[in-house]
Amino acid sequence: MNGTATRVPTHEPEIDFWFDFGSNYSYLSVMRIEAEAAARGVRIHWRPFLLGPVFRDLGFDNSPFVLQKEKGAYVWKDMERQCRKYGIALKRPTTFPRAALLAMRVALLGAQREWIAAYCRKIMQLNFAHDRDIGSMEVMSEALDELGLPAGEIIAEAQSDANKLRLREQTAAAAARGIFGAPTFFVGDEMFWGNDRLDDALDYCASVAASG
Amino acid sequence: MNGTATRVPTHEPEIDFWFDFGSNYSYLSVMRIEAEAAARGVRIHWRPFLLGPVFRDLGFDNSPFVLQKEKGAYVWKDMERQCRKYGIALKRPTTFPRAALLAMRVALLGAQREWIAAYCRKIMQLNFAHDRDIGSMEVMSEALDELGLPAGEIIAEAQSDANKLRLREQTAAAAARGIFGAPTFFVGDEMFWGNDRLDDALDYCASVAASG
Repeated sequence: MNGTATRVPTHEPEIDFWFDFGSNYSYLSVMRIEAEAAARGVRIHWRPFLLGPVFRDLGFDNSPFVLQKEKGAYVWKDMERQCRKYGIALKRPTTFPRAALLAMRVALLGAQREWIAAYCRKIMQLNFAHDRDIGSMEVMSEALDELGLPAGEIIAEAQSDANKLRLREQTAAAAARGIFGAPTFFVGDEMFWGNDRLDDALDYCASVAASG
Repeated sequence: MNGTATRVPTHEPEIDFWFDFGSNYSYLSVMRIEAEAAARGVRIHWRPFLLGPVFRDLGFDNSPFVLQKEKGAYVWKDMERQCRKYGIALKRPTTFPRAALLAMRVALLGAQREWIAAYCRKIMQLNFAHDRDIGSMEVMSEALDELGLPAGEIIAEAQSDANKLRLREQTAAAAARGIFGAPTFFVGDEMFWGNDRLDDALDYCASVAASG
């Protein structure tokens, strides 16, 4: 059958973007990914998951940036430089990592709605540029209001048992895929870890699609 | 005294490059640093140190890439892609991380000699491209021979009590500077961790010198 092989259809390039609002390097990727993906014609699948349970499964009871003080001290120097490089505002959060269960549940609910990117940027900026408690109901309501979204309705839906369960399942799925930190990107089965690999992941995604 | 401030003399830009031959990401930097530094007129200070004792001081009895199997699995995928990107050969070492005490002592001895860069590339390639046991006397002798260096003389000097002590002291100095991994770069007191920050470190180094 040489020369008559079935042609694999060309797919729209897609990237899975796994993130947690408490993760500082996820902040950089949330702020950067839309423009970088658009420039390459790549569609983003937003995959919020809870990094805390993943760390606990790996034997860590907190972020490595808290558990290892030398690394922790370095990370904030690195964040200052990275944010300057990318033109992203930074104010080191007084609480780190910030738990933001409700915000994560809303992200899961909105993952396929048109407001997901703007919502994620808003929450990340509140945490990492304005040092606001993104775990509180008050800050969440304010954020949704400012985005022109029906806060009460969205929060009620996010707090439903079904949505809570979905976030636990999505977190288990992250662990099952071998994810050990955030942000993590998948292009098919190819895994890329860290904001430092965002461009490589998107380039790979676009190249696979082009040759598909 | 406005307008008559003392002019700070412009210094030749310098970077401290802290590395261990067992470290896979140090391999990438050893292969890349000379060309990147030369392009920016930056002088390299080669600072070999023993990553093992630094990890042990931080509470780890092995490389994080061994202790965390998810991260370890990822790292070799990442290495494949990074090596392809930079045009660097890779054959995953059958022993990782490879202890190479003698090779490290020779690196310390040669740190300010003209053969240091070629020597470091040679040892790294033996470990990460040819899967040779760089901890053995045989491989060391062969490597120095091939570089046209007096192997017997250099090895004897490297094994002197004074040089052994200096490597222990240099390792303690690394820990005292807050180093927690390799490669690490210092430009003055500014620390940059990982091959992913080599370009940023060199750019910073060149910019500080230009404004000095």
